[in-house]
Amino acid sequence: MAPAKNLTMVMNAGSSSLKFKVFQALGNGELESLASGLCERIGDTANSRMKAKTAEGGSVTLQEGFSDHQDALGLVSRFLADTFSSSFTRSVHSVGHRVVHGLDISAPVLIDDGVKAVIEKAISLAPLHNPAGLQGIEAAMATFPAAPHVAVFDTAFHQTMAPAAYMYALPKELYDEQAVRRYGFHGSSYKYLVPRAAKTLGKPVESLNAIICHLGAGSSMCAVRGGQSVDTTMGLTPLEGLVMGTRCGDIDPAIVTYLLGQGHSGAEVDALLNKRSGFLGLTGHSDLRAVIDGAAAGSAPDRIALDVWRHRIRKYIGAYALQMGGPLDALIFSAGIGENSSILRAFLLEGLEWYGIALDEESNKAAVDGVAGNITAPGAKVQVLVIPTDEELSIAEQAIEVVDRT
Amino acid sequence: MAPAKNLTMVMNAGSSSLKFKVFQALGNGELESLASGLCERIGDTANSRMKAKTAEGGSVTLQEGFSDHQDALGLVSRFLADTFSSSFTRSVHSVGHRVVHGLDISAPVLIDDGVKAVIEKAISLAPLHNPAGLQGIEAAMATFPAAPHVAVFDTAFHQTMAPAAYMYALPKELYDEQAVRRYGFHGSSYKYLVPRAAKTLGKPVESLNAIICHLGAGSSMCAVRGGQSVDTTMGLTPLEGLVMGTRCGDIDPAIVTYLLGQGHSGAEVDALLNKRSGFLGLTGHSDLRAVIDGAAAGSAPDRIALDVWRHRIRKYIGAYALQMGGPLDALIFSAGIGENSSILRAFLLEGLEWYGIALDEESNKAAVDGVAGNITAPGAKVQVLVIPTDEELSIAEQAIEVVDRT
Repeated sequence: MAPAKNLTMVMNAGSSSLKFKVFQALGNGELESLASGLCERIGDTANSRMKAKTAEGGSVTLQEGFSDHQDALGLVSRFLADTFSSSFTRSVHSVGHRVVHGLDISAPVLIDDGVKAVIEKAISLAPLHNPAGLQGIEAAMATFPAAPHVAVFDTAFHQTMAPAAYMYALPKELYDEQAVRRYGFHGSSYKYLVPRAAKTLGKPVESLNAIICHLGAGSSMCAVRGGQSVDTTMGLTPLEGLVMGTRCGDIDPAIVTYLLGQGHSGAEVDALLNKRSGFLGLTGHSDLRAVIDGAAAGSAPDRIALDVWRHRIRKYIGAYALQMGGPLDALIFSAGIGENSSILRAFLLEGLEWYGIALDEESNKAAVDGVAGNITAPGAKVQVLVIPTDEELSIAEQAIEVVDRT
Repeated sequence: MAPAKNLTMVMNAGSSSLKFKVFQALGNGELESLASGLCERIGDTANSRMKAKTAEGGSVTLQEGFSDHQDALGLVSRFLADTFSSSFTRSVHSVGHRVVHGLDISAPVLIDDGVKAVIEKAISLAPLHNPAGLQGIEAAMATFPAAPHVAVFDTAFHQTMAPAAYMYALPKELYDEQAVRRYGFHGSSYKYLVPRAAKTLGKPVESLNAIICHLGAGSSMCAVRGGQSVDTTMGLTPLEGLVMGTRCGDIDPAIVTYLLGQGHSGAEVDALLNKRSGFLGLTGHSDLRAVIDGAAAGSAPDRIALDVWRHRIRKYIGAYALQMGGPLDALIFSAGIGENSSILRAFLLEGLEWYGIALDEESNKAAVDGVAGNITAPGAKVQVLVIPTDEELSIAEQAIEVVDRT
């Protein structure tokens, strides 16, 4: 199959990985995915490999030594040329790069030296993610030199928050000089979900008041008022907020200094909070299915972990409902857990009928495995929606919008 | 004036200070304060002194070298004997000791070696407060050897919280082995306020659903459901939760490790979060009146600090309202700021009419300087009350109850 022009390439670079997805614009403005894949163990040349699949069902794993992201992208490029056409790289109309931290950049932007400088400046706040983002950009600019490259930031959607929501009560110079504040993440997911939720509810985006629960391996929530983010659970980093697979979310910050006083180093505490906490810390397993099974079988730690998880989300539902300035239109579930676990959605919202939130059991059970649904019980005031998210598609849409406008 | 028997002495020992207050039981069961005072700079013998006053209006400042809490209490004892009668120490029916951290002790208790061992065990969690508490207890037991001594813990009232509310999503061994969990503080204040709020509302304590805002130099909130604490903003330590005079309250815990990465030591970060943050950090002044005046005069940092303060409290109002399992009866203000700042109460609740919360302007203005009041606007669903708290009286009441029961 030879693709037409107007391909958009979405790239998501990690420190030793590179995810990609290729979209083709259809005549009606919709985007269709042609292929996607993952290069992993970049730098570990004996074990690095690319796994890729096409929309037509083909899949391939190629073992090849990549010493860096550019090596990996070279193989991606050859795979795409072989699969589609030798002119593939020249057909790429835009490249959208997922970048985790964009400081105060509030929209996707064409990448130039100034944008690269911002991404670099944000490395101190996102030391694991932003260096990889820059490497991915450099590699892609060398591989697709003719295409415009667009940076799409996880933080951008939340730039509509007011100081009341984004300022911490810390010495002001930490904000003025080091940009320490709440940023929030999962922005491409929220940006994708908001117009779709408004459409489902038959409301203009500008009047949508909703709470979105993006519940995956990393989880966050967003208070959307008038279609814009007014608050979100993640903060300076993706550690704050909800209970996640291995992350603690909210804790008394004095616990960190307590642990230092117990003889742990800063790096050890960082690893403890980010990699050994959350469901893993409370139960011994980070896979939520194992926690659910354990709780069903009567395991007290599993049951408590689910209680703690639910309590945290409910605190934010209540906190964000009060920020709406009026009735809450909808509660929206998305991402891996939010889209698929009808059991946890039912557990989470149990007993909230008095608050205007209730599920329809059958609709809830049906909205799994990528199926969207309005799962509200008849008569309940707050609409409860399941909407599968697609961060790659969101990044492609945003990249195209920037390029078309330029 | 010679006091009758049935005196109760309340003691609150800090690391270099000792506060006391003496109550006499009246015939009708009420407690009347006879005298109160403060010994300060204990250990700094050149500058240590006692300030005291009596209910009849006398006041005295005595300069005397105290090398320890027992020295200080010796002077308190001589002052009371001189003021009242030489038999004063023999008239003391009970001594109530404020102790900050009591681990899982859920009620006031007669102090024995087991109780002392718990207070000592909690030193790692309250390193500034519990050692002083123990010193105060030892000194008072030597000074009033015949009286029963009762420990009243700031943490006790919150022991009714469920694991969902008190567990952090941290490695479980931190709870199992080191008792790391949410405890909450200001328990004597909440215990004092709950029955008084129920009485004001004409409800049995057991059916009171309320949110209490104890807003002082240290501030916290408590979700009271069925008369019991089901959640509170302070955590393992008094750092978590609201924006306070010099404490940050909630932050992304990764900010602590970020600051360590910037070269600060654990002790420096601890001091930054506890002593240089909050209103002081955001505005340069820790006195809230200066912040209010600054905001009124157009200072942006002062205005933002108040916005951040309000946003945090409102998040908890929303979060706790959802935990009521039904309608919220009342929102209660207490402690220095809560009892006295009608301006901040009005600012805090501005625009929440749609949520069922609205103030009556005149009643709000009248409820200051120790005057209690129902400040609800006519027709608003949630009753808003101002109730002055009295932690010393609460401790005296609790001590007497334990002694009378024993």
